Amino acid sequence: MTTEAPVAINGVDLEAVAGLVGAVKDDPAAGATTWHAEVRWTGGFSSEARVRSFAPVPSDEPPALGGGDTAANPVEQLLGALGNCLAVGYAANASAAGIVLDDVRVDLEGDLDLHAFLGLGDGNAGFESIRVQVHLASAAAPEALVELHERVVSTSPVGHTLQRAVPVTVELA
Amino acid sequence: MTTEAPVAINGVDLEAVAGLVGAVKDDPAAGATTWHAEVRWTGGFSSEARVRSFAPVPSDEPPALGGGDTAANPVEQLLGALGNCLAVGYAANASAAGIVLDDVRVDLEGDLDLHAFLGLGDGNAGFESIRVQVHLASAAAPEALVELHERVVSTSPVGHTLQRAVPVTVELA
Repeated sequence: MTTEAPVAINGVDLEAVAGLVGAVKDDPAAGATTWHAEVRWTGGFSSEARVRSFAPVPSDEPPALGGGDTAANPVEQLLGALGNCLAVGYAANASAAGIVLDDVRVDLEGDLDLHAFLGLGDGNAGFESIRVQVHLASAAAPEALVELHERVVSTSPVGHTLQRAVPVTVELA
Repeated sequence: MTTEAPVAINGVDLEAVAGLVGAVKDDPAAGATTWHAEVRWTGGFSSEARVRSFAPVPSDEPPALGGGDTAANPVEQLLGALGNCLAVGYAANASAAGIVLDDVRVDLEGDLDLHAFLGLGDGNAGFESIRVQVHLASAAAPEALVELHERVVSTSPVGHTLQRAVPVTVELA
């Protein structure tokens, strides 16, 4: 007879998630979090973003925009952050619902008019719209996957951030 | 007598930027751009964002959130994207104004309540507010740096994206 540890569904540590849910239920203040990043300019249009002790992630612009084309640019990084956030959401909510996922792929695109960024107008310099296509591979019932999808979209931190007007204060130190 | 190529201020290729500005002025449709990213789930709470042909950028969650703690998480990536966008903005606008920058550092933080993400409420799952401190090192006059700062903040693509409600559609393929 062998005693096996419970296999985490989708590789997700459900115990850790349940522990956090319990902690935030017991003490709502435990749900209040603050996140940080530090960016250093590295010349031209290139820079690096540092988060905690992880290796810095490079940023640059394509040649048409005057950059050195060494890395994804900031608006592409923003799309990547949304896709990563959705991926976590599918993994977390599928696991909680007992749905095994074989694969998750997220394709993202966003439209942006360069006029304001280039100083040619006062309009919106940011994304006008963002479209996302999610490819889920799973043996679960289609209805279960639709329910999963709706839950993920309605609770995505990066998704909510983009769909709301967030107060951003930028000050010279 | 030697003929030297013009030295790009701050390492910025002003000719490329001027060319793009001219092209968008001549043909406003040239300012309409679409950007892409693709995310692949890699098990647990980890995933990778791919942009063009660059190396994939990893994503994960800290242990308290049930992750493997191998990379910055999506909301930290979003802060990094904002910082990188501002860094490009300072480099571009300083160069256009003839301001030499010795250093640019951007510290970012954002507040996020976990209740909605954890399924404990229907509120905002995203950032409630984002605060940014910019450290500019330059011999330029303080007034010139304040003017630069105001121009950058008012034309930042990622900044505008966060400060507006962007339509985001997420569909199951």
